[in-house]
Amino acid sequence: MLNFSSDYTNGAHPDVLQRLVETNGEILTTYGSDRYTEAAKTKIRAACSCPDADIYFLAGGTQTNLTVISGMLGLCAGVIAADTGHIALHEAGAIEYTGHKVMTVPQHEGKITAEALSACLAAFDADENRTHMPYPGMVYISHPTEYGTLYSLAELEALSAICRAREIPLFLDGARLGYGLASRRTDVTMADIARLCDVFYIGGTKVGALCGEAVVFPRGNAPRHFFTMVKQHGALLAKGRLVGVQFDALFTDGLYLTISRHAIDLAEELKVILREKGYRFFMETDTNQQFVILQNGQYAALSEKVALSYWEAYDEHHTVVRFATSWSTTEEDLAALREIL
Amino acid sequence: MLNFSSDYTNGAHPDVLQRLVETNGEILTTYGSDRYTEAAKTKIRAACSCPDADIYFLAGGTQTNLTVISGMLGLCAGVIAADTGHIALHEAGAIEYTGHKVMTVPQHEGKITAEALSACLAAFDADENRTHMPYPGMVYISHPTEYGTLYSLAELEALSAICRAREIPLFLDGARLGYGLASRRTDVTMADIARLCDVFYIGGTKVGALCGEAVVFPRGNAPRHFFTMVKQHGALLAKGRLVGVQFDALFTDGLYLTISRHAIDLAEELKVILREKGYRFFMETDTNQQFVILQNGQYAALSEKVALSYWEAYDEHHTVVRFATSWSTTEEDLAALREIL
Amino acid sequence: MLNFSSDYTNGAHPDVLQRLVETNGEILTTYGSDRYTEAAKTKIRAACSCPDADIYFLAGGTQTNLTVISGMLGLCAGVIAADTGHIALHEAGAIEYTGHKVMTVPQHEGKITAEALSACLAAFDADENRTHMPYPGMVYISHPTEYGTLYSLAELEALSAICRAREIPLFLDGARLGYGLASRRTDVTMADIARLCDVFYIGGTKVGALCGEAVVFPRGNAPRHFFTMVKQHGALLAKGRLVGVQFDALFTDGLYLTISRHAIDLAEELKVILREKGYRFFMETDTNQQFVILQNGQYAALSEKVALSYWEAYDEHHTVVRFATSWSTTEEDLAALREIL
Amino acid sequence: MLNFSSDYTNGAHPDVLQRLVETNGEILTTYGSDRYTEAAKTKIRAACSCPDADIYFLAGGTQTNLTVISGMLGLCAGVIAADTGHIALHEAGAIEYTGHKVMTVPQHEGKITAEALSACLAAFDADENRTHMPYPGMVYISHPTEYGTLYSLAELEALSAICRAREIPLFLDGARLGYGLASRRTDVTMADIARLCDVFYIGGTKVGALCGEAVVFPRGNAPRHFFTMVKQHGALLAKGRLVGVQFDALFTDGLYLTISRHAIDLAEELKVILREKGYRFFMETDTNQQFVILQNGQYAALSEKVALSYWEAYDEHHTVVRFATSWSTTEEDLAALREIL
Repeated sequence: MLNFSSDYTNGAHPDVLQRLVETNGEILTTYGSDRYTEAAKTKIRAACSCPDADIYFLAGGTQTNLTVISGMLGLCAGVIAADTGHIALHEAGAIEYTGHKVMTVPQHEGKITAEALSACLAAFDADENRTHMPYPGMVYISHPTEYGTLYSLAELEALSAICRAREIPLFLDGARLGYGLASRRTDVTMADIARLCDVFYIGGTKVGALCGEAVVFPRGNAPRHFFTMVKQHGALLAKGRLVGVQFDALFTDGLYLTISRHAIDLAEELKVILREKGYRFFMETDTNQQFVILQNGQYAALSEKVALSYWEAYDEHHTVVRFATSWSTTEEDLAALREIL
Repeated sequence: MLNFSSDYTNGAHPDVLQRLVETNGEILTTYGSDRYTEAAKTKIRAACSCPDADIYFLAGGTQTNLTVISGMLGLCAGVIAADTGHIALHEAGAIEYTGHKVMTVPQHEGKITAEALSACLAAFDADENRTHMPYPGMVYISHPTEYGTLYSLAELEALSAICRAREIPLFLDGARLGYGLASRRTDVTMADIARLCDVFYIGGTKVGALCGEAVVFPRGNAPRHFFTMVKQHGALLAKGRLVGVQFDALFTDGLYLTISRHAIDLAEELKVILREKGYRFFMETDTNQQFVILQNGQYAALSEKVALSYWEAYDEHHTVVRFATSWSTTEEDLAALREIL
Repeated sequence: MLNFSSDYTNGAHPDVLQRLVETNGEILTTYGSDRYTEAAKTKIRAACSCPDADIYFLAGGTQTNLTVISGMLGLCAGVIAADTGHIALHEAGAIEYTGHKVMTVPQHEGKITAEALSACLAAFDADENRTHMPYPGMVYISHPTEYGTLYSLAELEALSAICRAREIPLFLDGARLGYGLASRRTDVTMADIARLCDVFYIGGTKVGALCGEAVVFPRGNAPRHFFTMVKQHGALLAKGRLVGVQFDALFTDGLYLTISRHAIDLAEELKVILREKGYRFFMETDTNQQFVILQNGQYAALSEKVALSYWEAYDEHHTVVRFATSWSTTEEDLAALREIL
Repeated sequence: MLNFSSDYTNGAHPDVLQRLVETNGEILTTYGSDRYTEAAKTKIRAACSCPDADIYFLAGGTQTNLTVISGMLGLCAGVIAADTGHIALHEAGAIEYTGHKVMTVPQHEGKITAEALSACLAAFDADENRTHMPYPGMVYISHPTEYGTLYSLAELEALSAICRAREIPLFLDGARLGYGLASRRTDVTMADIARLCDVFYIGGTKVGALCGEAVVFPRGNAPRHFFTMVKQHGALLAKGRLVGVQFDALFTDGLYLTISRHAIDLAEELKVILREKGYRFFMETDTNQQFVILQNGQYAALSEKVALSYWEAYDEHHTVVRFATSWSTTEEDLAALREIL
């Protein structure tokens, strides 16, 4: 069946797989100490313009979020997130399981605005009961967001300035970072992110890898004992090469961006098709995820012909669904979809 | 200074103190195995009409909430609470520290309505991503609520029915239970609470004791190993007599209700005074806490003459403040307050 | 029945109770902000010769241990304790519940020797797998120990030097500190403890109070947000006066030491009696707890006449039991015991 | 450099890699719902003779241990393990991080004996302070153990009988299960393990896979919400196919056992070589790991020519090191090693 349900129904990008095959016979040291992992780090440092960055490779997004957040929060601290943030909604309470509150602020197009962040911090500061409350210890944003939207450079700069003034880290979840960087309507670069955030991760699972996310502490600012924390959270791969080799491939000759651009090109075509066919967009987005509002009956009927992702109930009679492209989506897929819609 | 800031600025009720003094010279067994603790349990079982109830005495409210909630929730379960619930706001993230999400629903007068609860549960059940989410494992309500309001018997019955249909426990935080039971406009008795809830606690700290809360599992349904859980959470008093003797006194000859009624009588007078003086109520309540909206300047001025509690910001220019009576408030206090207002 | 089972079967020391009674009618601010709590802090600072000490009052020992330890340990850090340490054995896994490993070292008379500590640290440092292990982040000792033994000043200095060289805090559990300071064979003062430790607590529950322990950070070195941590752990008493008033009494006119000395005097007499009657000591101790080895039958028979504490199995046929004196033990108690033995 | 340091310095077994390559182009459903994962489960159920088994695929060993253990333990429960058990030593305190104590018993050849287990349980039951202690809630064993030794069928049956009598689960960590099953001196089959344990995992990472472990609940006895727990612990792979495909390959045509047997054949040759060369074995083992005691100087010298694993200090002058074979070790490797030794 035609599949637009997500960007992780495919395997690895052929070039990534090829590198796994080529290096498979080699004997390599373990736990991320191998030369491919080292090479991948070097390439990512260059891509971020951060020669001193500390880089760690983990297997998946939730794992990365919980390890980074619990590793950087103080004991009574909470993490501020949009109420639609992945950590607030769809990670099975993983952050709370590490002992910390997710402090939600209302989202705007999936984003935290500087105004909302300032208001949240000011409300905390003004609250005479604040010593009986978790204090804000980190800000978590997704870029692209869970709705596929993007922060502008000005927006990122504003959030970063607020965090720095308060000396709390800004953490950017880049599960789909490639699709954000490759968007036709972004002014944010990887170097900007590295400059403005205190930690972020570059998603591999949804952008060409079988698994793997690269955590970047841009100024060598990983918490002490972070390696042991990764182990403690069950997030340390014995064969670290598995992720190291894949990221080495993704950051060779710009593959990460190249394949992301392909997904964006097809997403732009997808938008045209959806618009032509009269679909109602839930939100305007410029990355590889497109959200539309379907009548429930229409959703059921369409689901028999094309795999989509349920996103959320819109109202009693309508559902928000997601169409996603990826590096592996083809023009044929789009043509077939056009037929169906 | 005149003090209406809270119901725990006083010491113990004289009768409670007297019992501590009378029993002080006795050698008693420890960790709650003494005869006064046993007597208190017997009296509470009678007051609840629950001959099989398991009863535990802890020192304070947050401690009780975190021990009960973490002791009854499954690993991935969250606890549903009003967004103004004490566990959601003013317990420093204690529930999250035990690894569980507080799943908030919008409050109505500080209460969870049956509609809001049903909607929350239905939304969870309908969410196709629900296996990636914490599941609702308990419902937490306060009675009186944090705003001093009360559930009606019909409201409690409705919530209880929903919880039983779903087989999740209903937990009632009775930090100020006495003031709720003694209200002039309630149709809810202690026996009703015991019948409709799966666990609740009878607050002592705010109703005549120096410290102490009585946790009641009405049908002998304490979790296995609950005593050890209490110890594990640091909530087991070596001299269990401290709380046992106080509750024995509070549940002798109806003292708990008698002193609560006194607070309610004065609260009703307080309401009259506030109304006469033209104060604007934030919410209509029938218990010992009264919330009014003050201009910020008025709040500052008034605070120099009478101790009040800051509750929350109302808007930029106004603050919600609390006046509380207790078993120790006097007619003279009210007369003096009337002078000041 | 005659009772030597523990030092917390009694109520409050009469002078302590008297202060609770005298202050009961006062309206006081809450959560430890009252003037008696402040006065108690001032007196404790003087007793420790630590004018800058941060002091917090909690209700009980396990609660204090878990709050202090989790508040000071890094995420992957463990706490080193003697394998007979209270946190390792009899706190229901409270430390593990906060996420940290108790790293045990073999005890000598209930104590950690400098040699054992150095060996433990050296073994960690030499272990090539140490990044896959929790790292030593604190040293926990009890003084008196769980067996009633005491560190000498030289021993404490040696442990302190090791901890400072490694920059990990030394935490002294003083649940029975009074009985240690009042021992006839100690060269350790409260000022020594304050000088050599990074945090310690002065036990109230077992030395004259109904409940309460005073946590001292001698150089104003409480972790940031420690007040909120206390709240988060359910350890913040709403009526902070309950513990504040008691410690104010205990540290007025040297009451704490005076009553401890009484217990020591009687413990010395108890030792003479036990020796005369041919009892076999499990360990030589100079504080208020005396441990002897009884045949199991003898233990059962004796238990019918005098309350003792089971301590641990010695072998298949023998049991280690504890006789404890306290500030409330009388000469008459000892005379009666002599009759029975 | 010649490498005998571990069984995870290689990539995937060629047949496993081949399946990843062949299936890479397919669009598959996510989070373990794909057909290869389903096929792998079916084959594992057959290999275990457990048609009703619940099976989950996770990425690595520590992750599996912490998810299974925290998912099955009650709140105050600890897990009994040998003091050399992986969870007790080399998982960075991961179990404690989930809130549970690892209760160690002395090991014999890396194993828990029935006697040691019975003694531990009897001591707990006899301890009059046991309600102040974590209770034994699970038994964890490794097969092969961390020293490469194996339980006999009689030993496993004895442990299982003790666990069942007490109604606590027996969990077998099979990180290297293949090498245990393929040993020339074992009478334990996979079906025996499934019959005698309540949960176990079949290690992939060290036996032919790039990553992945298969958790088996043999009688359909997975805890409720276990899928969500896996997500909560960050252990749910978005592309579940990554592990599913690999296990499908490993359990096709007996590959798992075939390649394990190869490692065992070479380990037997390795033992002959080590014995011939006069090396002193730390323990007699019949699986793919061989531990010998080297003088520290000898260890340093040898390490320049062949990669070995440091295991532990033996004494001041000697070190225990590990030689490991795997499915990828060759006769040429052994010949080269013979030259060097």
